[in-house]
Amino acid sequence: MSRQPLYVIKIGGNIIDDATKLSLFLDHFAAIKAPKVLVHGGGKLATRLAESLQVPQQLIEGRRITDAETLKIVTMVYAGYINKNLVAQLQARGCSAIGLSGADGDAVRAHKRRHAAFDYGFVGDVDGVNADLLTTLLSRGNTVVLAPITHDGKGQLLNTNADTIAQETARALGSHFHVCLVYSFEKAGVLQNAADEDSVIRAITPEKYRELKAAGIVSAGMIPKLDNAFAALTSGVGEVIIGKAEELPALLSGEKGTHIHHD
Amino acid sequence: MSRQPLYVIKIGGNIIDDATKLSLFLDHFAAIKAPKVLVHGGGKLATRLAESLQVPQQLIEGRRITDAETLKIVTMVYAGYINKNLVAQLQARGCSAIGLSGADGDAVRAHKRRHAAFDYGFVGDVDGVNADLLTTLLSRGNTVVLAPITHDGKGQLLNTNADTIAQETARALGSHFHVCLVYSFEKAGVLQNAADEDSVIRAITPEKYRELKAAGIVSAGMIPKLDNAFAALTSGVGEVIIGKAEELPALLSGEKGTHIHHD
Repeated sequence: MSRQPLYVIKIGGNIIDDATKLSLFLDHFAAIKAPKVLVHGGGKLATRLAESLQVPQQLIEGRRITDAETLKIVTMVYAGYINKNLVAQLQARGCSAIGLSGADGDAVRAHKRRHAAFDYGFVGDVDGVNADLLTTLLSRGNTVVLAPITHDGKGQLLNTNADTIAQETARALGSHFHVCLVYSFEKAGVLQNAADEDSVIRAITPEKYRELKAAGIVSAGMIPKLDNAFAALTSGVGEVIIGKAEELPALLSGEKGTHIHHD
Repeated sequence: MSRQPLYVIKIGGNIIDDATKLSLFLDHFAAIKAPKVLVHGGGKLATRLAESLQVPQQLIEGRRITDAETLKIVTMVYAGYINKNLVAQLQARGCSAIGLSGADGDAVRAHKRRHAAFDYGFVGDVDGVNADLLTTLLSRGNTVVLAPITHDGKGQLLNTNADTIAQETARALGSHFHVCLVYSFEKAGVLQNAADEDSVIRAITPEKYRELKAAGIVSAGMIPKLDNAFAALTSGVGEVIIGKAEELPALLSGEKGTHIHHD
Protein backbone atom coordinates (compact mmCIF):
# COMPACT_ATOMS: atom_id res chain seq x y z
CA MET A 1 0.00 0.00 0.00
CA SER A 2 1.59 3.29 -1.02
CA ARG A 3 1.06 6.27 1.24
CA GLN A 4 0.14 9.71 -0.13
CA PRO A 5 3.14 11.99 -0.69
CA LEU A 6 3.67 14.99 1.60
CA TYR A 7 6.32 17.70 1.40
CA VAL A 8 7.94 19.35 4.42
CA ILE A 9 10.03 22.26 3.15
CA LYS A 10 12.28 24.43 5.28
CA ILE A 11 13.37 27.91 4.20
CA GLY A 12 15.79 30.22 5.98
CA GLY A 13 16.77 33.86 6.07
CA ASN A 14 18.45 33.89 2.64
CA ILE A 15 14.99 33.45 1.05
CA ILE A 16 12.89 35.31 3.64
CA ASP A 17 15.04 38.45 3.35
CA ASP A 18 15.00 38.55 -0.47
CA ALA A 19 11.57 39.65 -1.79
CA THR A 20 12.26 38.51 -5.37
CA LYS A 21 13.54 35.07 -4.41
CA LEU A 22 10.74 34.68 -1.86
CA SER A 23 8.03 35.53 -4.37
CA LEU A 24 9.38 33.01 -6.88
CA PHE A 25 9.72 30.36 -4.18
CA LEU A 26 6.12 30.93 -3.04
CA ASP A 27 4.89 30.60 -6.66
CA HIS A 28 6.57 27.22 -6.88
CA PHE A 29 5.58 26.13 -3.40
CA ALA A 30 1.89 27.07 -3.90
CA ALA A 31 1.87 25.06 -7.14
CA ILE A 32 2.69 21.78 -5.36
CA LYS A 33 -0.50 19.74 -5.55
CA ALA A 34 0.30 17.34 -2.68
CA PRO A 35 -0.23 18.19 1.02
CA LYS A 36 2.62 20.35 2.27
CA VAL A 37 4.14 22.03 5.30
CA LEU A 38 6.40 25.10 5.13
CA VAL A 39 8.79 25.61 8.05
CA HIS A 40 10.50 28.98 8.16
CA GLY A 41 13.40 30.34 10.11
CA GLY A 42 14.13 33.93 11.00
CA GLY A 43 16.06 36.43 8.98
CA LYS A 44 17.62 39.82 9.43
CA LEU A 45 14.48 41.58 10.65
CA ALA A 46 14.80 40.21 14.21
CA THR A 47 18.43 41.36 14.41
CA ARG A 48 17.58 44.78 12.98
CA LEU A 49 14.65 45.16 15.39
CA ALA A 50 16.89 44.22 18.35
CA GLU A 51 19.39 46.86 17.21
CA SER A 52 16.68 49.53 16.84
CA LEU A 53 15.38 48.69 20.32
CA GLN A 54 18.92 48.55 21.69
CA VAL A 55 18.54 44.99 22.96
CA PRO A 56 22.09 43.61 23.00
CA GLN A 57 22.47 40.21 21.31
CA GLN A 58 24.68 37.71 23.12
CA LEU A 59 26.25 34.78 21.32
CA ILE A 60 27.74 31.68 22.95
CA GLU A 61 29.66 29.43 20.53
CA GLY A 62 27.89 31.07 17.60
CA ARG A 63 24.41 30.55 19.06
CA ARG A 64 22.20 33.44 19.97
CA ILE A 65 21.22 33.55 23.64
CA THR A 66 17.51 34.14 23.90
CA ASP A 67 16.93 36.37 26.92
CA ALA A 68 13.41 37.60 27.77
CA GLU A 69 13.64 40.69 25.56
CA THR A 70 15.03 38.68 22.64
CA LEU A 71 12.25 36.11 23.04
CA LYS A 72 9.72 38.94 22.77
CA ILE A 73 11.38 40.14 19.57
CA VAL A 74 11.59 36.73 17.90
CA THR A 75 7.99 35.94 18.90
CA MET A 76 6.87 39.19 17.26
CA VAL A 77 9.00 38.78 14.14
CA TYR A 78 8.88 35.01 13.52
CA ALA A 79 5.36 34.09 14.72
CA GLY A 80 3.89 37.50 13.82
CA TYR A 81 5.43 39.41 10.95
CA ILE A 82 7.15 36.67 8.92
CA ASN A 83 4.57 33.93 9.53
CA LYS A 84 1.53 36.09 8.73
CA ASN A 85 3.10 37.64 5.63
CA LEU A 86 4.01 34.19 4.28
CA VAL A 87 0.43 33.03 4.96
CA ALA A 88 -1.15 36.09 3.29
CA GLN A 89 1.11 35.71 0.25
CA LEU A 90 0.23 32.01 -0.06
CA GLN A 91 -3.49 32.83 0.27
CA ALA A 92 -3.04 35.28 -2.64
CA ARG A 93 -1.68 32.33 -4.68
CA GLY A 94 -4.78 30.20 -4.01
CA CYS A 95 -3.02 28.13 -1.34
CA SER A 96 -5.05 28.06 1.88
CA ALA A 97 -2.16 28.39 4.28
CA ILE A 98 -2.60 28.41 8.04
CA GLY A 99 0.28 29.68 10.14
CA LEU A 100 1.07 28.16 13.51
CA SER A 101 3.59 28.57 16.27
CA GLY A 102 4.30 25.48 18.33
CA ALA A 103 1.91 26.74 21.02
CA ASP A 104 -1.05 26.82 18.62
CA GLY A 105 -3.09 23.68 19.16
CA ASP A 106 0.00 22.31 20.96
CA ALA A 107 1.52 21.85 17.47
CA VAL A 108 5.14 21.59 18.67
CA ARG A 109 5.92 20.89 22.32
CA ALA A 110 9.43 21.55 23.61
CA HIS A 111 11.41 22.00 26.82
CA LYS A 112 13.90 24.70 27.75
CA ARG A 113 17.38 23.58 26.76
CA ARG A 114 19.40 22.14 29.64
CA HIS A 115 23.14 22.58 29.34
CA ALA A 116 25.71 21.88 32.04
CA ALA A 117 27.98 24.86 31.36
CA PHE A 118 25.78 27.76 30.32
CA ASP A 119 22.24 28.97 29.92
CA TYR A 120 20.96 29.43 26.38
CA GLY A 121 17.97 31.28 27.78
CA PHE A 122 14.53 30.68 26.28
CA VAL A 123 15.64 28.13 23.69
CA GLY A 124 13.55 25.01 23.19
CA ASP A 125 14.50 21.45 22.29
CA VAL A 126 11.58 19.67 20.63
CA ASP A 127 9.73 16.90 22.50
CA GLY A 128 7.08 16.18 19.89
CA VAL A 129 4.92 17.35 17.01
CA ASN A 130 1.12 17.05 17.08
CA ALA A 131 0.49 14.84 14.05
CA ASP A 132 -3.26 14.68 14.75
CA LEU A 133 -3.66 18.47 14.46
CA LEU A 134 -1.51 18.68 11.33
CA THR A 135 -3.27 15.79 9.55
CA THR A 136 -6.68 17.34 10.37
CA LEU A 137 -5.61 20.62 8.77
CA LEU A 138 -3.86 18.96 5.80
CA SER A 139 -6.85 16.70 5.14
CA ARG A 140 -9.17 19.71 4.85
CA GLY A 141 -6.82 21.19 2.23
CA ASN A 142 -4.84 23.60 4.38
CA THR A 143 -1.11 24.08 4.00
CA VAL A 144 0.59 24.46 7.36
CA VAL A 145 3.22 27.21 7.85
CA LEU A 146 5.25 26.63 11.01
CA ALA A 147 7.14 29.42 12.80
CA PRO A 148 10.26 28.50 14.83
CA ILE A 149 8.63 29.35 18.17
CA THR A 150 7.47 26.49 20.41
CA HIS A 151 6.07 26.20 23.95
CA ASP A 152 6.62 24.01 26.99
CA GLY A 153 2.96 23.42 27.90
CA LYS A 154 3.45 25.49 31.06
CA GLY A 155 2.96 28.88 29.45
CA GLN A 156 6.52 29.50 28.28
CA LEU A 157 7.24 30.26 24.62
CA LEU A 158 10.65 29.07 23.37
CA ASN A 159 12.88 30.02 20.44
CA THR A 160 13.54 26.83 18.46
CA ASN A 161 15.73 25.80 15.54
CA ALA A 162 13.68 25.61 12.32
CA ASP A 163 15.72 22.71 10.88
CA THR A 164 14.82 20.64 13.95
CA ILE A 165 11.13 21.57 13.69
CA ALA A 166 11.16 20.51 10.03
CA GLN A 167 12.83 17.21 10.87
CA GLU A 168 10.48 16.44 13.79
CA THR A 169 7.45 17.37 11.67
CA ALA A 170 8.61 15.08 8.87
CA ARG A 171 9.13 12.24 11.38
CA ALA A 172 5.74 12.77 13.06
CA LEU A 173 3.92 12.65 9.72
CA GLY A 174 5.97 9.70 8.42
CA SER A 175 3.41 7.10 9.52
CA HIS A 176 0.59 8.90 7.65
CA PHE A 177 2.38 10.01 4.48
CA HIS A 178 5.37 9.26 2.27
CA VAL A 179 7.29 12.32 3.45
CA CYS A 180 9.81 14.20 1.35
CA LEU A 181 11.80 16.62 3.57
CA VAL A 182 13.51 19.52 1.78
CA TYR A 183 16.19 21.56 3.54
CA SER A 184 16.79 24.64 1.46
CA PHE A 185 19.93 26.65 1.99
CA GLU A 186 22.28 28.96 0.13
CA LYS A 187 24.16 26.24 -1.77
CA ALA A 188 22.90 24.11 -4.66
CA GLY A 189 23.39 20.97 -2.56
CA VAL A 190 26.17 19.12 -0.74
CA LEU A 191 29.30 20.08 -2.68
CA GLN A 192 32.24 17.80 -3.51
CA ASN A 193 34.37 20.96 -3.62
CA ALA A 194 33.11 23.79 -1.40
CA ALA A 195 34.43 26.42 -3.86
CA ASP A 196 32.61 24.93 -6.87
CA GLU A 197 28.83 25.32 -7.07
CA ASP A 198 28.81 22.83 -9.96
CA SER A 199 30.25 20.01 -7.82
CA VAL A 200 26.93 18.98 -6.24
CA ILE A 201 26.91 15.39 -5.03
CA ARG A 202 23.62 14.22 -6.53
CA ALA A 203 22.89 11.28 -4.24
CA ILE A 204 24.11 10.21 -0.82
CA THR A 205 23.42 6.83 0.73
CA PRO A 206 24.69 5.76 4.18
CA GLU A 207 27.74 4.04 2.61
CA LYS A 208 28.52 7.04 0.44
CA TYR A 209 28.25 9.30 3.50
CA ARG A 210 30.80 7.17 5.38
CA GLU A 211 33.15 7.38 2.39
CA LEU A 212 32.74 11.16 2.09
CA LYS A 213 33.38 11.71 5.80
CA ALA A 214 36.41 9.38 5.75
CA ALA A 215 37.84 11.30 2.77
CA GLY A 216 37.26 14.62 4.57
CA ILE A 217 35.02 15.86 1.74
CA VAL A 218 32.02 16.83 3.88
CA SER A 219 32.59 20.19 5.53
CA ALA A 220 32.16 20.52 9.31
CA GLY A 221 29.10 22.73 8.80
CA MET A 222 27.34 20.10 6.69
CA ILE A 223 27.86 17.19 9.10
CA PRO A 224 25.01 18.11 11.50
CA LYS A 225 22.65 18.63 8.52
CA LEU A 226 23.54 15.25 7.06
CA ASP A 227 23.43 13.49 10.43
CA ASN A 228 19.92 14.95 10.84
CA ALA A 229 18.97 13.84 7.34
CA PHE A 230 20.00 10.23 8.02
CA ALA A 231 18.32 10.32 11.45
CA ALA A 232 15.12 11.42 9.67
CA LEU A 233 15.40 8.55 7.18
CA THR A 234 15.79 5.97 9.92
CA SER A 235 12.67 7.29 11.65
CA GLY A 236 10.16 7.04 8.83
CA VAL A 237 10.92 9.90 6.44
CA GLY A 238 10.94 8.77 2.80
CA GLU A 239 13.54 11.09 1.31
CA VAL A 240 15.60 14.16 2.21
CA ILE A 241 16.64 16.75 -0.39
CA ILE A 242 19.19 19.53 0.18
CA GLY A 243 19.43 22.44 -2.25
CA LYS A 244 18.40 25.96 -3.19
CA ALA A 245 14.84 27.09 -2.51
CA GLU A 246 14.95 29.06 -5.79
CA GLU A 247 15.28 25.74 -7.60
CA LEU A 248 12.37 24.01 -5.86
CA PRO A 249 10.76 22.44 -8.97
CA ALA A 250 14.11 20.98 -10.09
CA LEU A 251 14.81 19.73 -6.55
CA LEU A 252 11.47 17.93 -6.42
CA SER A 253 11.76 16.49 -9.95
CA GLY A 254 15.20 15.14 -9.07
CA GLU A 255 17.12 17.27 -11.59
CA LYS A 256 18.95 19.29 -8.96
CA GLY A 257 20.12 19.20 -5.35
CA THR A 258 21.48 16.40 -3.21
CA HIS A 259 19.06 13.52 -2.69
CA ILE A 260 19.58 11.51 0.46
CA HIS A 261 18.06 8.07 0.72
CA HIS A 262 18.62 4.62 2.12
CA ASP A 263 19.97 2.89 -0.98
CA MET B 1 -33.91 21.22 18.51
CA SER B 2 -31.59 23.21 20.74
CA ARG B 3 -28.18 24.09 19.38
CA GLN B 4 -25.02 23.65 21.45
CA PRO B 5 -23.92 26.80 23.29
CA LEU B 6 -20.80 28.63 22.13
CA TYR B 7 -19.10 31.67 23.66
CA VAL B 8 -17.40 34.44 21.68
CA ILE B 9 -15.61 36.69 24.15
CA LYS B 10 -13.80 39.89 23.26
CA ILE B 11 -11.14 41.42 25.51
CA GLY B 12 -9.33 44.72 25.04
CA GLY B 13 -6.22 46.51 26.21
CA ASN B 14 -7.45 47.08 29.78
CA ILE B 15 -7.14 43.30 30.38
CA ILE B 16 -4.24 42.53 28.04
CA ASP B 17 -2.03 45.18 29.69
CA ASP B 18 -2.76 44.06 33.28
CA ALA B 19 -0.98 40.77 34.08
CA THR B 20 -3.02 40.10 37.24
CA LYS B 21 -6.41 40.76 35.64
CA LEU B 22 -5.38 38.80 32.54
CA SER B 23 -4.31 35.76 34.55
CA LEU B 24 -7.62 35.71 36.46
CA PHE B 25 -9.58 36.18 33.25
CA LEU B 26 -7.72 33.30 31.57
CA ASP B 27 -8.42 31.03 34.59
CA HIS B 28 -12.15 31.74 34.18
CA PHE B 29 -12.10 31.57 30.40
CA ALA B 30 -10.22 28.23 30.35
CA ALA B 31 -12.79 26.80 32.79
CA ILE B 32 -15.70 27.31 30.36
CA LYS B 33 -16.69 23.82 29.25
CA ALA B 34 -18.53 24.83 26.07
CA PRO B 35 -16.77 25.60 22.76
CA LYS B 36 -15.35 29.11 22.82
CA VAL B 37 -13.58 31.79 20.81
CA LEU B 38 -11.46 34.55 22.32
CA VAL B 39 -11.06 37.73 20.27
CA HIS B 40 -8.41 40.13 21.49
CA GLY B 41 -7.61 43.73 20.72
CA GLY B 42 -4.32 45.49 21.08
CA GLY B 43 -2.97 47.26 24.09
CA LYS B 44 -0.22 49.65 24.97
CA LEU B 45 2.63 47.50 23.65
CA ALA B 46 2.03 48.49 20.00
CA THR B 47 2.04 52.19 20.94
CA ARG B 48 5.18 51.78 23.06
CA LEU B 49 6.94 49.86 20.29
CA ALA B 50 6.02 52.55 17.75
CA GLU B 51 7.46 55.15 20.11
CA SER B 52 10.69 53.16 20.63
CA LEU B 53 11.06 52.76 16.86
CA GLN B 54 10.15 56.43 16.32
CA VAL B 55 7.24 55.59 14.03
CA PRO B 56 4.91 58.59 14.36
CA GLN B 57 1.26 57.66 15.05
CA GLN B 58 -1.33 59.65 13.11
CA LEU B 59 -4.92 59.89 14.28
CA ILE B 60 -7.90 61.05 12.21
CA GLU B 61 -11.08 61.60 14.24
CA GLY B 62 -9.66 59.47 17.05
CA ARG B 63 -8.79 56.56 14.78
CA ARG B 64 -5.23 55.44 14.27
CA ILE B 65 -4.05 55.62 10.67
CA THR B 66 -2.33 52.39 9.79
CA ASP B 67 0.57 53.22 7.50
CA ALA B 68 2.96 50.49 6.28
CA GLU B 69 5.28 50.79 9.30
CA THR B 70 2.37 50.77 11.75
CA LEU B 71 0.89 47.69 10.04
CA LYS B 72 4.23 45.94 10.54
CA ILE B 73 4.15 46.83 14.24
CA VAL B 74 0.55 45.74 14.86
CA THR B 75 1.12 42.50 12.93
CA MET B 76 4.12 41.75 15.15
CA VAL B 77 2.42 42.74 18.40
CA TYR B 78 -1.18 41.57 17.88
CA ALA B 79 -0.71 38.44 15.72
CA GLY B 80 2.70 37.63 17.23
CA TYR B 81 3.40 38.65 20.79
CA ILE B 82 -0.10 39.02 22.26
CA ASN B 83 -1.75 36.17 20.37
CA LYS B 84 1.00 33.61 21.06
CA ASN B 85 1.29 34.55 24.72
CA LEU B 86 -2.48 34.20 25.20
CA VAL B 87 -2.34 30.80 23.47
CA ALA B 88 0.62 29.58 25.57
CA GLN B 89 -1.07 30.71 28.79
CA LEU B 90 -4.31 28.93 27.81
CA GLN B 91 -2.35 25.77 26.95
CA ALA B 92 -0.85 25.92 30.45
CA ARG B 93 -4.44 25.91 31.80
CA GLY B 94 -5.35 22.73 29.90
CA CYS B 95 -7.22 24.64 27.20
CA SER B 96 -5.96 23.66 23.74
CA ALA B 97 -6.01 27.11 22.22
CA ILE B 98 -5.05 27.80 18.61
CA GLY B 99 -4.27 31.39 17.64
CA LEU B 100 -5.19 32.72 14.22
CA SER B 101 -4.98 35.94 12.31
CA GLY B 102 -7.63 36.47 9.66
CA ALA B 103 -5.14 35.33 6.99
CA ASP B 104 -4.70 31.91 8.61
CA GLY B 105 -6.89 29.43 6.78
CA ASP B 106 -8.71 32.50 5.37
CA ALA B 107 -10.34 32.80 8.82
CA VAL B 108 -11.41 36.45 8.42
CA ARG B 109 -11.49 38.06 4.98
CA ALA B 110 -11.67 41.86 4.73
CA HIS B 111 -11.15 44.72 2.29
CA LYS B 112 -9.18 47.93 2.72
CA ARG B 113 -11.49 50.61 4.08
CA ARG B 114 -12.80 52.99 1.42
CA HIS B 115 -13.56 56.48 2.64
CA ALA B 116 -14.44 59.47 0.47
CA ALA B 117 -12.51 62.09 2.46
CA PHE B 118 -9.37 60.41 3.75
CA ASP B 119 -7.27 57.30 3.72
CA TYR B 120 -7.22 55.20 6.89
CA GLY B 121 -4.29 53.24 5.46
CA PHE B 122 -4.13 49.48 5.94
CA VAL B 123 -7.40 49.17 7.87
CA GLY B 124 -9.78 46.36 6.99
CA ASP B 125 -13.57 46.15 7.02
CA VAL B 126 -14.70 42.55 7.43
CA ASP B 127 -16.31 40.72 4.49
CA GLY B 128 -16.75 37.34 6.14
CA VAL B 129 -15.63 34.78 8.70
CA ASN B 130 -14.76 31.19 7.71
CA ALA B 131 -17.30 29.22 9.79
CA ASP B 132 -16.17 25.91 8.28
CA LEU B 133 -12.57 26.33 9.54
CA LEU B 134 -13.70 27.49 12.98
CA THR B 135 -16.24 24.67 13.44
CA THR B 136 -13.61 22.09 12.38
CA LEU B 137 -11.22 23.39 15.05
CA LEU B 138 -13.92 23.78 17.72
CA SER B 139 -15.28 20.28 17.04
CA ARG B 140 -11.85 18.75 17.68
CA GLY B 141 -11.74 20.51 21.05
CA ASN B 142 -9.63 23.54 20.17
CA THR B 143 -10.38 27.01 21.48
CA VAL B 144 -9.82 29.65 18.80
CA VAL B 145 -7.95 32.86 19.71
CA LEU B 146 -8.41 35.53 17.03
CA ALA B 147 -6.00 38.45 16.55
CA PRO B 148 -7.35 41.72 15.08
CA ILE B 149 -5.34 41.35 11.85
CA THR B 150 -7.17 40.25 8.69
CA HIS B 151 -6.27 39.90 5.00
CA ASP B 152 -7.80 40.77 1.65
CA GLY B 153 -7.06 37.50 -0.15
CA LYS B 154 -4.60 39.33 -2.41
CA GLY B 155 -1.64 39.23 -0.02
CA GLN B 156 -2.38 42.35 2.00
CA LEU B 157 -2.70 42.15 5.78
CA LEU B 158 -5.10 44.67 7.37
CA ASN B 159 -5.50 46.11 10.85
CA THR B 160 -9.10 45.41 11.92
CA ASN B 161 -11.34 46.36 14.83
CA ALA B 162 -11.60 43.49 17.33
CA ASP B 163 -15.23 44.30 18.28
CA THR B 164 -16.21 43.86 14.63
CA ILE B 165 -14.30 40.58 14.33
CA ALA B 166 -16.09 39.31 17.46
CA GLN B 167 -19.48 40.33 16.08
CA GLU B 168 -18.86 38.80 12.64
CA THR B 169 -17.52 35.60 14.23
CA ALA B 170 -20.62 35.34 16.44
CA ARG B 171 -22.86 35.87 13.40
CA ALA B 172 -21.01 33.35 11.24
CA LEU B 173 -21.29 30.67 13.94
CA GLY B 174 -24.93 31.51 14.75
CA SER B 175 -26.34 28.85 12.43
CA HIS B 176 -24.22 26.11 14.06
CA PHE B 177 -24.42 27.12 17.73
CA HIS B 178 -26.49 29.09 20.24
CA VAL B 179 -23.94 31.93 20.42
CA CYS B 180 -23.39 34.11 23.47
CA LEU B 181 -21.28 37.15 22.52
CA VAL B 182 -19.50 38.90 25.40
CA TYR B 183 -18.01 42.36 24.92
CA SER B 184 -15.77 43.05 27.87
CA PHE B 185 -14.74 46.58 28.63
CA GLU B 186 -13.69 48.79 31.55
CA LYS B 187 -17.21 49.33 32.98
CA ALA B 188 -19.43 46.82 34.79
CA GLY B 189 -22.05 47.15 32.02
CA VAL B 190 -24.20 49.83 30.40
CA LEU B 191 -24.66 52.41 33.16
CA GLN B 192 -27.84 54.37 33.92
CA ASN B 193 -25.57 57.04 35.41
CA ALA B 194 -22.08 57.18 33.87
CA ALA B 195 -20.57 58.29 37.20
CA ASP B 196 -22.07 55.39 39.19
CA GLU B 197 -20.61 51.91 38.66
CA ASP B 198 -23.56 50.49 40.63
CA SER B 199 -26.13 51.78 38.15
CA VAL B 200 -25.73 48.92 35.64
CA ILE B 201 -28.80 48.40 33.49
CA ARG B 202 -29.24 44.64 33.84
CA ALA B 203 -31.26 43.93 30.69
CA ILE B 204 -31.88 45.81 27.47
CA THR B 205 -34.47 44.83 24.90
CA PRO B 206 -35.11 46.75 21.65
CA GLU B 207 -37.98 48.75 23.30
CA LYS B 208 -35.88 49.53 26.35
CA TYR B 209 -33.04 50.68 24.07
CA ARG B 210 -35.37 53.11 22.26
CA GLU B 211 -36.54 54.49 25.63
CA LEU B 212 -32.96 54.90 26.90
CA LYS B 213 -31.84 56.68 23.74
CA ALA B 214 -34.92 58.96 23.77
CA ALA B 215 -34.22 59.86 27.41
CA GLY B 216 -30.56 60.60 26.56
CA ILE B 217 -29.36 58.00 29.06
CA VAL B 218 -27.09 56.07 26.69
CA SER B 219 -23.77 57.87 26.23
CA ALA B 220 -22.56 58.62 22.70
CA GLY B 221 -19.68 56.15 23.14
CA MET B 222 -22.04 53.29 23.99
CA ILE B 223 -24.39 53.78 21.02
CA PRO B 224 -22.14 52.04 18.42
CA LYS B 225 -21.59 49.11 20.84
CA LEU B 226 -25.34 48.73 21.44
CA ASP B 227 -26.20 49.19 17.75
CA ASN B 228 -23.70 46.39 17.02
CA ALA B 229 -25.20 44.24 19.77
CA PHE B 230 -28.72 44.53 18.31
CA ALA B 231 -27.39 44.00 14.78
CA ALA B 232 -25.80 40.78 16.07
CA LEU B 233 -29.09 39.65 17.63
CA THR B 234 -31.02 40.19 14.39
CA SER B 235 -28.47 38.11 12.49
CA GLY B 236 -28.59 34.92 14.53
CA VAL B 237 -26.64 35.59 17.74
CA GLY B 238 -28.50 34.31 20.81
CA GLU B 239 -27.43 36.82 23.44
CA VAL B 240 -25.00 39.71 23.91
CA ILE B 241 -23.47 40.53 27.31
CA ILE B 242 -21.53 43.71 28.13
CA GLY B 243 -19.42 43.92 31.29
CA LYS B 244 -16.05 43.51 32.96
CA ALA B 245 -13.79 40.66 31.86
CA GLU B 246 -12.70 40.30 35.52
CA GLU B 247 -16.28 39.28 36.32
CA LEU B 248 -16.62 36.67 33.57
CA PRO B 249 -18.28 33.91 35.67
CA ALA B 250 -20.88 36.37 37.02
CA LEU B 251 -21.47 37.75 33.51
CA LEU B 252 -22.13 34.27 32.15
CA SER B 253 -24.32 33.18 35.10
CA GLY B 254 -26.43 36.33 34.64
CA GLU B 255 -25.55 37.87 38.03
CA LYS B 256 -23.63 40.80 36.54
CA GLY B 257 -23.33 42.93 33.40
CA THR B 258 -25.85 44.14 30.89
CA HIS B 259 -27.70 41.37 29.05
CA ILE B 260 -29.03 42.29 25.65
CA HIS B 261 -31.72 40.15 24.09
CA HIS B 262 -34.80 40.27 21.91
CA ASP B 263 -37.48 40.28 24.60
